[in-house]
Amino acid sequence: MVESGQRMALRIAGIMLMIAVSGLSMTVAADEAGSDTQPAVDENQLLRVAAVQTKPRMIDWRLRDPQQVLAAVDKNLVALESIVDDAGDLGCDVLTFPEDTLGLLNWHGMNEQLAPEVLPAAVARMINRLGKAAEKHQMYLVLCSDLVESDGDTYNTAFLLDRAGKEIGRYHKVCPTWSEAASRKRGQSFPVFQTSDLGTVGMLICYDLVFPETARCLALSGADIIFFPTMGGGAVGDGDIGMQALRVRAAENHVYLVVAFRGSGAMVISPRGEILSRAEGPDGIVYADINPSQGRRSGDAMNIQSDMRARLFRERNPSAFAMLTDPHPPILDKVPIEISQQEAGRIASEVLTIGEEEFRQAESLVRAEKTAEAIEAFARLRKKYRGSWIDRVAQERLTTLRNK
Amino acid sequence: MVESGQRMALRIAGIMLMIAVSGLSMTVAADEAGSDTQPAVDENQLLRVAAVQTKPRMIDWRLRDPQQVLAAVDKNLVALESIVDDAGDLGCDVLTFPEDTLGLLNWHGMNEQLAPEVLPAAVARMINRLGKAAEKHQMYLVLCSDLVESDGDTYNTAFLLDRAGKEIGRYHKVCPTWSEAASRKRGQSFPVFQTSDLGTVGMLICYDLVFPETARCLALSGADIIFFPTMGGGAVGDGDIGMQALRVRAAENHVYLVVAFRGSGAMVISPRGEILSRAEGPDGIVYADINPSQGRRSGDAMNIQSDMRARLFRERNPSAFAMLTDPHPPILDKVPIEISQQEAGRIASEVLTIGEEEFRQAESLVRAEKTAEAIEAFARLRKKYRGSWIDRVAQERLTTLRNK
Repeated sequence: MVESGQRMALRIAGIMLMIAVSGLSMTVAADEAGSDTQPAVDENQLLRVAAVQTKPRMIDWRLRDPQQVLAAVDKNLVALESIVDDAGDLGCDVLTFPEDTLGLLNWHGMNEQLAPEVLPAAVARMINRLGKAAEKHQMYLVLCSDLVESDGDTYNTAFLLDRAGKEIGRYHKVCPTWSEAASRKRGQSFPVFQTSDLGTVGMLICYDLVFPETARCLALSGADIIFFPTMGGGAVGDGDIGMQALRVRAAENHVYLVVAFRGSGAMVISPRGEILSRAEGPDGIVYADINPSQGRRSGDAMNIQSDMRARLFRERNPSAFAMLTDPHPPILDKVPIEISQQEAGRIASEVLTIGEEEFRQAESLVRAEKTAEAIEAFARLRKKYRGSWIDRVAQERLTTLRNK
Repeated sequence: MVESGQRMALRIAGIMLMIAVSGLSMTVAADEAGSDTQPAVDENQLLRVAAVQTKPRMIDWRLRDPQQVLAAVDKNLVALESIVDDAGDLGCDVLTFPEDTLGLLNWHGMNEQLAPEVLPAAVARMINRLGKAAEKHQMYLVLCSDLVESDGDTYNTAFLLDRAGKEIGRYHKVCPTWSEAASRKRGQSFPVFQTSDLGTVGMLICYDLVFPETARCLALSGADIIFFPTMGGGAVGDGDIGMQALRVRAAENHVYLVVAFRGSGAMVISPRGEILSRAEGPDGIVYADINPSQGRRSGDAMNIQSDMRARLFRERNPSAFAMLTDPHPPILDKVPIEISQQEAGRIASEVLTIGEEEFRQAESLVRAEKTAEAIEAFARLRKKYRGSWIDRVAQERLTTLRNK
């Protein structure tokens, strides 16, 4: 019954209604005094929140010497440090880096046995070096990397550094992909961190946001703003659905969402699902000036709230939501899975590295017109990398070759 | 780590990847044989699922005689019956009507004491008459109305009728709006209904879908398709966010979503978030031909599933989601609410009826240039209908009048 008031009013009185009133702290002017009006914006309360869409700087997975790997990490950190300086020069109060900030993903997939030696050292260098750079600019930082924790388990981890460059928060990705989870443990909590000026802060990583439960847990814990290092959108599917899902995640929780998307797609989204700003180009930085405690004026024709969370989180009906925590809901028996995490994990690591090389070799057989050998190679690739893009494209090549 | 495989492949091999493979049962051709291929589409398995965007047929809230109200219901049913016939002639297998199918919403708001006498009789007539019409066409129906149930409580209720016109399922709206809940009880479960050919069916109503938890509970219970009588979108906010949220609800659960939106906006959405078809014009009918058990082929560069639910619902991590069922999460203390459900409910009922009349009277004072009286009237309206569109627009009028 949200819109009937609007429709009726339009029909009867011909009034143009502002059902959802503009609530951006940046754009709302001081309002008439009254209990339900928007407070005047204090420019001094605005924070410049930023994210960078770093270009991929993938560390060579063939490196077997930990010192060589760490040297490659140091080389990447030189480039990332200059991005921190750029953001500082832009007056940013916080800068968010994408998932796999250091570029170790592919290397890690092929060198798991070396990870306990390399990842903690690499992460320590990252926090130390980028933290010092951020401290110069009195800027918060959000970083992300796989990490072998002190318990011996590996987690995809996000780090929150304060304006002094010190770590004040850490988050372990709760919902890695099927293949990713083969070699990483899943986080078990959604911590939020109180800050003096950024409000209540939460972090999520990439595939987490395919699941509305993740951002919801943070919002219920009071998060005003979510920093989101990622290499993907908020939904699995074609076209714009991944981007639209990011807008919807922000709107359904009335949180600010700062998207640090590797390569392209970094943006800042308002609590009402508006894209405030987008990054452009390689290593592009996006920022928006916000007050994390404002920008939530919204509602419907019947009732507008100065902070719509007051209604939203009371209109929820958690006593009906028991299914959400059921460890074995009915859908699992209805739709079985035909591939283990372990096999999916092996395939993913190899697809990113030797799989691509093998695919190129098979392609070169086609170019050399060695059709029988090419058919054999693509058939082998389909089996070895089943379910991946290599399987899919090899299948297309086989169809073409067999129809020759 | 969803997209790095894609990027790497593009960079190294220059291959155009089909990361998320077209999975619509309507459009996918028979595929090469193999364990991971799409089955050929059997045209006989396609069902024509439909929704209608009925124009509002609001029953006069001034009627105090139950027999007169039921006569008005009968008059509406004549029109709705002809819509059922139209859908039958189009070969539809199921037709979904919008929320408040009978147009009793405003009347109910002003005549709660008569509801126990009127609503059950009105709903019985609706099910009987439209059920018989649908039976002629061997068509399922989804209907929606407020109903005083046998326990004496009032629920916003959706009804599923089988091809013989008999009710086989009933759903009570779990998340009514703040004002709506003043005079309605909240449902406490998300039932799904097994059918012989529509798959596993769930229903949700309007504001329910602002909360991702609702559709998620149905999907976890195995729903393949959700019928959605509504008067609003899937998110609170401006512009397209409400419509995008509907797409995201379908995609995040990989369910078909059949949207019966009163007035305009009826559509059918695929499990991958694509709008398959939209209705046009007053009383417009939208339909799409689908197989409820198919259309879910999706994934990422690393792993594609013939039914992506196999991965999605295993990649969820419910042991980390305890916050979702917490009856008093921290956000409630952080953001208090300043208006009771009861007051919001009173305001909503009056805004839809006498409030609009009073607003028009105040407007006529402006036109008659009785400025002092107009100022007094608008000030009174702001207080009486605080937080509603009348408060908002009256405030604008006052600003204008006082600056004269």
